[in-house]
Amino acid sequence: MAEPLSDIAIARAARKKPIAEIAARLDIPDDALIPYGRDKAKLDADFLKGLGDRPDGKLILVTAINPTPAGEGKTTTTVGLGDGLNRIGKRAAICLREPSLGPCFGQKGGAAGGGYAQVVPMEDINLHFTGDFHAITTAHNLLAAMVDNHLHWGNTLGLDPRRIVWRRVMDMNDRALRDMVQSLGGPANGLPRESGFDITVASEIMAIVCLAADLDDLQVRLGRIVVGYRPDKSRVTARDLKADGAMATLLKNAMLPNLVQTIENNPAFVHGGPFANIAHGCNSVVATRAALKLADYVVTEAGFGADLGAEKFFDIKCRQAGLKPAVTVIVATVRALKMNGGVAKSDLGTENVEAVRRGSANLKRHVGNCISFGVPAIVAINHFGTDTDAEIEAVREAAAEAGVEAVLCKHWAQGSAGTAELAEKVAALADSGRARFKPIYPDAMSLLGKIETVVKDIYHGAAVTAEPAVLKALESFEADGYGHVPVCMAKTQYSFSTDPALLGAPSDHIVHVREVRLAAGAGFVVAICGDILTMPGLPRQPAAERIFLDAEGRVEGLF
Amino acid sequence: MAEPLSDIAIARAARKKPIAEIAARLDIPDDALIPYGRDKAKLDADFLKGLGDRPDGKLILVTAINPTPAGEGKTTTTVGLGDGLNRIGKRAAICLREPSLGPCFGQKGGAAGGGYAQVVPMEDINLHFTGDFHAITTAHNLLAAMVDNHLHWGNTLGLDPRRIVWRRVMDMNDRALRDMVQSLGGPANGLPRESGFDITVASEIMAIVCLAADLDDLQVRLGRIVVGYRPDKSRVTARDLKADGAMATLLKNAMLPNLVQTIENNPAFVHGGPFANIAHGCNSVVATRAALKLADYVVTEAGFGADLGAEKFFDIKCRQAGLKPAVTVIVATVRALKMNGGVAKSDLGTENVEAVRRGSANLKRHVGNCISFGVPAIVAINHFGTDTDAEIEAVREAAAEAGVEAVLCKHWAQGSAGTAELAEKVAALADSGRARFKPIYPDAMSLLGKIETVVKDIYHGAAVTAEPAVLKALESFEADGYGHVPVCMAKTQYSFSTDPALLGAPSDHIVHVREVRLAAGAGFVVAICGDILTMPGLPRQPAAERIFLDAEGRVEGLF
Repeated sequence: MAEPLSDIAIARAARKKPIAEIAARLDIPDDALIPYGRDKAKLDADFLKGLGDRPDGKLILVTAINPTPAGEGKTTTTVGLGDGLNRIGKRAAICLREPSLGPCFGQKGGAAGGGYAQVVPMEDINLHFTGDFHAITTAHNLLAAMVDNHLHWGNTLGLDPRRIVWRRVMDMNDRALRDMVQSLGGPANGLPRESGFDITVASEIMAIVCLAADLDDLQVRLGRIVVGYRPDKSRVTARDLKADGAMATLLKNAMLPNLVQTIENNPAFVHGGPFANIAHGCNSVVATRAALKLADYVVTEAGFGADLGAEKFFDIKCRQAGLKPAVTVIVATVRALKMNGGVAKSDLGTENVEAVRRGSANLKRHVGNCISFGVPAIVAINHFGTDTDAEIEAVREAAAEAGVEAVLCKHWAQGSAGTAELAEKVAALADSGRARFKPIYPDAMSLLGKIETVVKDIYHGAAVTAEPAVLKALESFEADGYGHVPVCMAKTQYSFSTDPALLGAPSDHIVHVREVRLAAGAGFVVAICGDILTMPGLPRQPAAERIFLDAEGRVEGLF
Repeated sequence: MAEPLSDIAIARAARKKPIAEIAARLDIPDDALIPYGRDKAKLDADFLKGLGDRPDGKLILVTAINPTPAGEGKTTTTVGLGDGLNRIGKRAAICLREPSLGPCFGQKGGAAGGGYAQVVPMEDINLHFTGDFHAITTAHNLLAAMVDNHLHWGNTLGLDPRRIVWRRVMDMNDRALRDMVQSLGGPANGLPRESGFDITVASEIMAIVCLAADLDDLQVRLGRIVVGYRPDKSRVTARDLKADGAMATLLKNAMLPNLVQTIENNPAFVHGGPFANIAHGCNSVVATRAALKLADYVVTEAGFGADLGAEKFFDIKCRQAGLKPAVTVIVATVRALKMNGGVAKSDLGTENVEAVRRGSANLKRHVGNCISFGVPAIVAINHFGTDTDAEIEAVREAAAEAGVEAVLCKHWAQGSAGTAELAEKVAALADSGRARFKPIYPDAMSLLGKIETVVKDIYHGAAVTAEPAVLKALESFEADGYGHVPVCMAKTQYSFSTDPALLGAPSDHIVHVREVRLAAGAGFVVAICGDILTMPGLPRQPAAERIFLDAEGRVEGLF
């Protein structure tokens, strides 16, 4: 058997069409496109405004079981399903997150789908793309520079230098920047203090760009960002520093959705990419809304497993943006279910139906959770060459026990031919009108009540514990008028519990909230449960070592 | 009299043409353009390769007297002269540097010319433009992350952690990042050490992008970058870390020249922007070479005054790229000459012919220096409303005493109508064939000899002094095969001496070299004389506070 082609080889062989042709598929006129190269474009702000009155298409969420090192292929399945819907004659668009440069040079190499289910131009999408992340980085760091500049020039706002909460960001895996003492070297360099960098996808500005309705909303949200506190604990905001206008200016183009294509020439919006732990993990509201106005079916994804990604998609993104999802697709692989069933990564090539059955507890839990939001669900089994018929049958049985259907998908190897069945069934579910979406808790519930609801109803934990300082902080957020916002849970993506080693479907665990942070601009309260890394490091052998330009100037080593 | 329009108001009122029409003026076909929006494009790599055999146009350098707070208008004059050449029927293009975001949010507000001599779209050019600086920032910081990652994972290359010379960069004025202790917080965060950030324009990678001939040359130069030393003082390079390929990949598009237009719809290449102290201060070789193949006259600028900018343009850029400049234009203003003649900024509105005469010593010195490179020169008097006829006449006389003509220019107020005379005279000089360009020192001279040549012949200093460590370092560079490279002098831009308060034309001063650095990738040795700030700070009231989006989403506050 021939060696399968690498992702970049498949992507490069794709017969891309001019982006105007892709846009025309959605009746987007040429003059609504702001080109970035020949195969990428942003949609013009005036065009977006004019879409307001059209009816919405049907919104399909792709989520997954808890991630394992075996890989689930959520983005790949999102792309494959979008291509499948187009293949069966539907007017469908895809909405994805933009990849971060950090993991690209760290472990992953690239993140724009895989095999025959990719978005292209994959090199550009994986590298600087249309500059959105760089704009977010710059806006974030401008605010940080203005905070330190304010301290330097006399601190008329009375900030407590020990209580600055606004760090800096870089779109890079760089552990050396996690903790630092800055402003050293004498009075000309400002007031020495402890701080550090997060990766750009962890920036509150990333979340703001992805949740803001338009430029006006963006500027208001940016102004609300809390940069630190006075000795009396009162908040100092970006607006107080007069930073909101310049930040909005830097983000003007970053707010416009990016249009690209799949390797089957179907339209894909790739826009925004917040972390799914410290933030809500979904592509931008602006892109999703535009896609819903332009297509009859919109397939989008949420970060990590459904416990984090889908919950936040429903409770944060859909709540804030007033979106009504029609179907949830839960991606599972035989390999990942085996790992959830206790099999080591090195043994995944051997048939083990029993392990699949055990691991399917994880799948069933996610199915039940997703259905509890009032949205019908279906399972997509993302096929690997080593899967056996008996193992696949075990997944089907588990899905049936959870009350939903499971469909085998072969998009990685076959493109849309491998997802036609899934597409038919998803379209039928979407058209059935069965969805009765509602968030899992009301706005009016207390912040602690919201945390408890997620822990009990989604994580199936027994209780929430919290430091006294956490309870006090939650009360102060409520007293200051932020009681109505949703909570954004930051916990490990590997388990329903806060212990990454606890796979499958653990119950009755205790979830301890270590810290809470008000993301006043994004409009949520982050509840940090366990250790959350907001600045990854590079591995011993970074992917960057293998990336280079070939003699024709083409990118090699992204995969 | 009506209030003059702001730069942004004039820029916004410009009737921009589609960038393909501007390109067509230079016979650049549509398929050679990579569009970035509707009014910016990069030139395709294949098209650039195909230009190789064409004859070159005439290269015209615009430089200036030493800068003062009164402003000289070098970029504005470069744009005005380009428009003037087009006005008199010449096929002319402009080559400028890209502005940095740092000063944009600090003091300056914007840097794309001024008045009726601007390049547009000025908001985009001043903000993220086509992402070149972000790409440079990212490539620089990837290398830094790989250095610290290497230390973290066992340091098999044997780097001395105390002798890492590769810092990080950000395109921001942020004094807080000048000096820091990083990698704090325990073993998971790496090896604590002192470091800091420079502004992106000070990155060696900025200089490399601006000097590299093509992608191959780029990758080789990147590999040569010295990141630090072993305890035995041997060098460790980016190539040793296997970082060169990924860095080149990040810079693939940043290497392609950007095409925009002046407000009079003439072609302008705006590409690259290294500092003129720590680096060589000129736009990219790639852009200048392309412009020379496409136009009959190419007007370009160099940073700061002629002592720094023009000297480096000749001795570094023209030497490395084999360029033969035809004319040098030296920009002066009555106001700046008055300041050089001892007048305070607050008194510049009052006629003071004697001060103009005294200050003209600075102009005459620069004229003589420029001519010493074998290139004919002309003085452009950039007109201000407060200039009197007698003052202007004094400048003309000073120029005549230096053996060159001075032409009054009113491009700020009148556009190309104000530079038609200058354009005629510059074109005549360029066509005269009088230029016999040669660098001021040969490659074969010792590094110290090169420094002494610049100090004596250009700065008119008496002697060079240096720390013993500096002399030792220069010898080691020569022993390692870097003796043939030019020197890049880093000193104050305000004076021929190293004392910024010593205006006019000081002589017989001593220039002390505090430190030398090998920029092995850029291909020069930096000689640092006096305090050079490589990370500016924001002022008490940053320009950022006044920048915002108006109700129509347009940028306000850039000027």
